[in-house]
Amino acid sequence: MTPPTLRDRIERLPLVDHHVHSVLQRDPSDAEFELLLTESSLPAPAGTSHLDSQVGFALRRHCAPLLDLPRHAEPGRYLEQRGLLGHREVARRLLRASGVSASLIDTGTVGGETELATNAEFAELADHEVHEIVRLESTAEELLRSGIAAEHFPDAFRRALDAVRGSAAGFKSIIAYRFGFDFAPQRPSDAETVAAVDALGPGGRERIDDPTVLRFLLWCGVDTGLPVQLHVGYGDADLDLWRCNPALLMPWLRLLPDSASPIMLLHCYPYHREAGYLAQVFPRVYFDLGLGINYSGAASSAIIREGLELAPFGKLLYSSDAWGVPELHLLGARLWRRGLAIALQEFVDADEWSAQEAIRVARLVCEGNARRVYAR
Amino acid sequence: MTPPTLRDRIERLPLVDHHVHSVLQRDPSDAEFELLLTESSLPAPAGTSHLDSQVGFALRRHCAPLLDLPRHAEPGRYLEQRGLLGHREVARRLLRASGVSASLIDTGTVGGETELATNAEFAELADHEVHEIVRLESTAEELLRSGIAAEHFPDAFRRALDAVRGSAAGFKSIIAYRFGFDFAPQRPSDAETVAAVDALGPGGRERIDDPTVLRFLLWCGVDTGLPVQLHVGYGDADLDLWRCNPALLMPWLRLLPDSASPIMLLHCYPYHREAGYLAQVFPRVYFDLGLGINYSGAASSAIIREGLELAPFGKLLYSSDAWGVPELHLLGARLWRRGLAIALQEFVDADEWSAQEAIRVARLVCEGNARRVYAR
Amino acid sequence: MTPPTLRDRIERLPLVDHHVHSVLQRDPSDAEFELLLTESSLPAPAGTSHLDSQVGFALRRHCAPLLDLPRHAEPGRYLEQRGLLGHREVARRLLRASGVSASLIDTGTVGGETELATNAEFAELADHEVHEIVRLESTAEELLRSGIAAEHFPDAFRRALDAVRGSAAGFKSIIAYRFGFDFAPQRPSDAETVAAVDALGPGGRERIDDPTVLRFLLWCGVDTGLPVQLHVGYGDADLDLWRCNPALLMPWLRLLPDSASPIMLLHCYPYHREAGYLAQVFPRVYFDLGLGINYSGAASSAIIREGLELAPFGKLLYSSDAWGVPELHLLGARLWRRGLAIALQEFVDADEWSAQEAIRVARLVCEGNARRVYAR
Repeated sequence: MTPPTLRDRIERLPLVDHHVHSVLQRDPSDAEFELLLTESSLPAPAGTSHLDSQVGFALRRHCAPLLDLPRHAEPGRYLEQRGLLGHREVARRLLRASGVSASLIDTGTVGGETELATNAEFAELADHEVHEIVRLESTAEELLRSGIAAEHFPDAFRRALDAVRGSAAGFKSIIAYRFGFDFAPQRPSDAETVAAVDALGPGGRERIDDPTVLRFLLWCGVDTGLPVQLHVGYGDADLDLWRCNPALLMPWLRLLPDSASPIMLLHCYPYHREAGYLAQVFPRVYFDLGLGINYSGAASSAIIREGLELAPFGKLLYSSDAWGVPELHLLGARLWRRGLAIALQEFVDADEWSAQEAIRVARLVCEGNARRVYAR
Repeated sequence: MTPPTLRDRIERLPLVDHHVHSVLQRDPSDAEFELLLTESSLPAPAGTSHLDSQVGFALRRHCAPLLDLPRHAEPGRYLEQRGLLGHREVARRLLRASGVSASLIDTGTVGGETELATNAEFAELADHEVHEIVRLESTAEELLRSGIAAEHFPDAFRRALDAVRGSAAGFKSIIAYRFGFDFAPQRPSDAETVAAVDALGPGGRERIDDPTVLRFLLWCGVDTGLPVQLHVGYGDADLDLWRCNPALLMPWLRLLPDSASPIMLLHCYPYHREAGYLAQVFPRVYFDLGLGINYSGAASSAIIREGLELAPFGKLLYSSDAWGVPELHLLGARLWRRGLAIALQEFVDADEWSAQEAIRVARLVCEGNARRVYAR
Repeated sequence: MTPPTLRDRIERLPLVDHHVHSVLQRDPSDAEFELLLTESSLPAPAGTSHLDSQVGFALRRHCAPLLDLPRHAEPGRYLEQRGLLGHREVARRLLRASGVSASLIDTGTVGGETELATNAEFAELADHEVHEIVRLESTAEELLRSGIAAEHFPDAFRRALDAVRGSAAGFKSIIAYRFGFDFAPQRPSDAETVAAVDALGPGGRERIDDPTVLRFLLWCGVDTGLPVQLHVGYGDADLDLWRCNPALLMPWLRLLPDSASPIMLLHCYPYHREAGYLAQVFPRVYFDLGLGINYSGAASSAIIREGLELAPFGKLLYSSDAWGVPELHLLGARLWRRGLAIALQEFVDADEWSAQEAIRVARLVCEGNARRVYAR
């Protein structure tokens, strides 16, 4: 009754990865590689390995054959082969096998800039379009490091966003990491912002965590009308997970004017049901399931299915949130296609959806929604 | 090994819809219809539709054939046919196809009263029993709008509840919407209540959101001994979702005297696991999965399965929480039967449950529990 | 493609039950038995039964045949047979059928001590190794009941922990129950602790719920380097569920020194996804899914699958959290093996995992991780 080709057709759909980072331009050591495959910043305890995990198993299953190894190759064998091929060849193979047609790269991650491929280099490795997402906090920190006087900061920040409007595909806020979503929802005045900047110590200028300043950046972001991405939920151990629940954004979302930006909730796990709810009740809210999919590997299909509950189908996007190693770019794409196909096939097999609508929805969440919202 | 008839038998079980609303007595415009199929109060963004969603797909799958259309008919075709048949004929067909034997109608929704079918009209359209659930806040607001002096309010409110005790099947509180479940759990004294009412402005008398007054209403409700329903979790964008987590009710639930009412937690998504937990540990707590089922369509079976984890089988009820259009009444019933059958069949096929017990449990959660608790 | 024996092989794996309690040394009445099969402390409402639930159905399915009854025997028949066999025979049969090789028994539960089998008696009934987990609060309350002066309490408590270091397999904290995880994360000084103990009334010495004292106990526990178990999530109606979310521990977990104990998060439902996240990002964090599995019976496989999302496979342990009746010990083991086999077989059948790795992971989460972390 259902065409045998739904999985096949989804495998061939181009993807827009609307939230992703670049790859390291060098060969990581084995220990570094292991830490690039976890959100932990610390080695695994004795007798265990971060690679003995869903993401490690998915790596051995999906990436090993692309590096000329058998499926499920041992981690040691994988690392050896990776070293032999070299990071550029590995990146070229894995990025090109992902079937991504465009990547929106968040260039604002701290520390790694000098080691990461530039967007132009990434585009060459991956052989696809690349667009830039500008991080609000990084932009502000650059200004503050320049020694700007507090009183000039609000205008200078607005000018800095204006300056990249033409080139950036959107902006990103990490207020979830730096403070939490339990911030005062109102827009701070310029005077409040100036006072808060004035009170920042040198450390506070290097790494903004003052809630008034963070709120100012976010409000300036949504004034641009370009999509504004927000880190939500799952991330490294620096954040307070329960304060990254996107439901906490509701008071702020209710205040946004009609002209404000689309709000893109990133990854969201384990609050992806809350994100789907917000995407239903707030027209400007969109979301994705990145990060959580990579790290849950063979178990990710259930998470993708939960992402298909409440939100209209025009509101869900694809992202990998990959960083550093192209294995994560490949796995994000593979696992997303796989989980999506499993869920949609179930709906079709249960005689609840038509096969034709299933493939149309697949196109939306793989590429169409991102191209519409980012206008790229 | 398992009888082939479990799904069939569940399809034929009568349902008691213990939390539902009436239907509009006019033909909505296409734009209105779309907004009646979402908890959002705003049009979908350009290029998208609220009907391009699980509930929209379920509508086209389950309602279209009842309106003489093919399965999965296009939304435009569906709306056209709906207009041709007219709202009364559509309501008659869909309500009667739902297999509901009794509806407990919450008559307290704001604004729509004059446009909604009366309970008598609904009973005629649906051809089944109708009982009334009286909303505590609406009852109080009616009193306050009459200009009653604050000092007379506590007694007058108690008398108002007494006056409907004989006819009402139960009461409903929307303290989740108006304040949140993080209220002070203790019963406010009459003096505190009078002071709080005295401090209400004209707007506060129209729409009560003072927590002391809301708590007073709730405590008066549970004094009646009749079932008291509480909105929980998922709803429109006016509420703060995280404050509608029913776990926040625990301090209040622990204070309730033995004589207090059964507490009926409504819909609960995405906090239905928390609701199941409360239904296990508090004898007076019951819950349902309404609303979340309609809006998750083909994906709703997983939610229903999660509702069958911790709670004793005497504690789960059926509701649609349908409002305005009879499509929601039909879909609630269809999707509930479907998801219930999938879950129970899995338990039987896995050789964990007997088929005989599966059908007994189905009868409880479809009808028996509601008839026992509401004594109707 | 996959060996037909994965389920069979998991059925035969020895288990370490790293969090469990002893069994009653007498025959409970029928009413008592029913209350031992729920986290509620109150009888079920009229017309319902705590045994009409997933745990009750699992009992009739899995325990009845071990008591020479047919599968799905009626509860009345089960209770009668249980009485005829007597508690010792029932315990011997069910404990030995569980395939547990070692139990780590939490001996600190309040009230039941005199009625529960001693660890030596339990070892004889179960015919397997038994180790003791010492409850921090019980140890402190024993000291306080002895009338110790507040100023001597900190040193005396540390000495009390030292005294059991050689014999105890680990410690347990119930700060979740007594206060919640929203405690001030810093270690209280001895002076602060003395002041807090000094302020305790007689009731506060019997049952510690002062957050400063509870924090002191917890910090002393993690100073020992032995595994420290924390009650998380689901439990009886005395706790405030939302304050037992393990994500709230993040500020405290970030403060722990390198030398601190492994932290064992117990049961975790409905916050098991949060627990899996913590187990990924904090090397010292481990978790299990006990209690929630028993009480969700045939539906528990989904919970086990969710426990296999983010955490590395070296971080998940088995526990039953059984208390009082050996049915819970048996069901914990049966349902764990079953759900684990279902999940792992799905991963293998989907061609995502190798069968060889599946059985290796099964060995880790059934026994290997516990033996490594507890060094037993």
